Amino acid sequence: MIKVSNIGICLRPSTPQLSSLYFSLKEIARKNNIEIRIDSISAQMINVVGVDFSDLCKWCDILITLGGDGTLISTIRKAFLYDKPILGINTGRLGFLTAIGINEIEDFILKLKNGDYIIKSQILLEGELNDKKLYCANEFLISKRDISGMIKIVAKINGKHFNTYFSDGLIIGTPAGSTAHNVSAGGAIIYPYNKNILLTPICAHSLTQRPLVLNDEFILDFELQDSKGNIVIDGQEILPFCQNDRFRVFVSSYSASLIYDSNRDYFGILRDKFNWGV
Amino acid sequence: MIKVSNIGICLRPSTPQLSSLYFSLKEIARKNNIEIRIDSISAQMINVVGVDFSDLCKWCDILITLGGDGTLISTIRKAFLYDKPILGINTGRLGFLTAIGINEIEDFILKLKNGDYIIKSQILLEGELNDKKLYCANEFLISKRDISGMIKIVAKINGKHFNTYFSDGLIIGTPAGSTAHNVSAGGAIIYPYNKNILLTPICAHSLTQRPLVLNDEFILDFELQDSKGNIVIDGQEILPFCQNDRFRVFVSSYSASLIYDSNRDYFGILRDKFNWGV
Repeated sequence: MIKVSNIGICLRPSTPQLSSLYFSLKEIARKNNIEIRIDSISAQMINVVGVDFSDLCKWCDILITLGGDGTLISTIRKAFLYDKPILGINTGRLGFLTAIGINEIEDFILKLKNGDYIIKSQILLEGELNDKKLYCANEFLISKRDISGMIKIVAKINGKHFNTYFSDGLIIGTPAGSTAHNVSAGGAIIYPYNKNILLTPICAHSLTQRPLVLNDEFILDFELQDSKGNIVIDGQEILPFCQNDRFRVFVSSYSASLIYDSNRDYFGILRDKFNWGV
Repeated sequence: MIKVSNIGICLRPSTPQLSSLYFSLKEIARKNNIEIRIDSISAQMINVVGVDFSDLCKWCDILITLGGDGTLISTIRKAFLYDKPILGINTGRLGFLTAIGINEIEDFILKLKNGDYIIKSQILLEGELNDKKLYCANEFLISKRDISGMIKIVAKINGKHFNTYFSDGLIIGTPAGSTAHNVSAGGAIIYPYNKNILLTPICAHSLTQRPLVLNDEFILDFELQDSKGNIVIDGQEILPFCQNDRFRVFVSSYSASLIYDSNRDYFGILRDKFNWGV
């Protein structure tokens, strides 16, 4: 692994309290001769001078996010084009994607400096809503727009009609997203570094509709029938999805590179998060 | 694909009524200059002369099974060492694995003769119960032995403690087996040509225990605690599994090669079997 000397920082939005954590991180970095810069939106929130996000990504060796899984996912969605590894520092509860907690920062900065870390690569899904490109780290959710009622989603696999989902919605997810909305909807937990596409209906009216796990050779096409919907990207962005719109999804040639401690135990985190048997 | 000229036949056990189907298949093959031989156990059932299964496998280009998915799975489990593709002819309901129905035999024999077919490869799981080698096409089921009560299964992933399942049992399955016992136990449907290992608990006592989908890089180890159990292989063979026994499972270097029509639509079969939306 490269020895890190330039780090770009992104903070969780609307959380100016992160200011003190940012300054202590900056001080630890300074002591280790590592340069830190912060993206302009995060900077504005805590009244410091920042760098345009695109310039930050070009300049840095790695990005660090301060926040939770949501902050990390939002940064993945903006940064993947620059192919820079991202380290998530968790300021909240135990995260699936974030790598370390606040009390581990000092030790881990030293590891970054010495190249003592691992990078795990997770797939991204790429979407085309008519001509608009979309990317998700966890999931595209096709959701009904009205509070009551259902939507009717016609699905094709590799150009061939596959199924009509009559449901509250349909999750088109990544393995990393399997422990998110997917698991709540009854989907299986998928090892996050697999190359699978998950199709999990939400409250399907037919009792035989079940979660389906495909691989990365498939291209999926979706259309609505007699329905109005939305496409919700990683729970963070909402786009209207109407009849006559065409929505295509496939595994992107881009991926997300996440930085972890070389001793990280994914299955231990799974066990802790879900309170599984010791 | 090779042009088939020698075919080995296996019949569903305890079904001597298959005799007439065997003779009509033999007649169709004769007309197409294809030689047919039958394994000795099937032969005995319908009072004809047969060939030892091992010799049959060495001699034939392909194997054909007459029966359902169960007959095909049983043949896969005996034949994979010889690496001969298998065609399942379905004599019952629509099968997931069998390729054609009885009324399609004549057309398909011609296709075999001309090399006009495809082969799809499915993973097998390999097990080691202490020093005994086991293989499954669909699943290893670790099941409780007593009618009432539960078992306690300690599971390791790549040598590291992962989880303790307190349940009626645990399915360790292949993607092809995902539409079998796994789907009844709440597991997701997995595209059968993926290289995944499925871990699906049956009636786990903890409400947060969920089906897990791994990939082929993992080695799993299981032990029982304070329990007596069985290992059921593809629903066809039962072995006692006791405390102090060690059971290891991983993706085998052997696989199953199944013959299908080049127009086969797996997702269409899925839709038909589960009565999904048209």
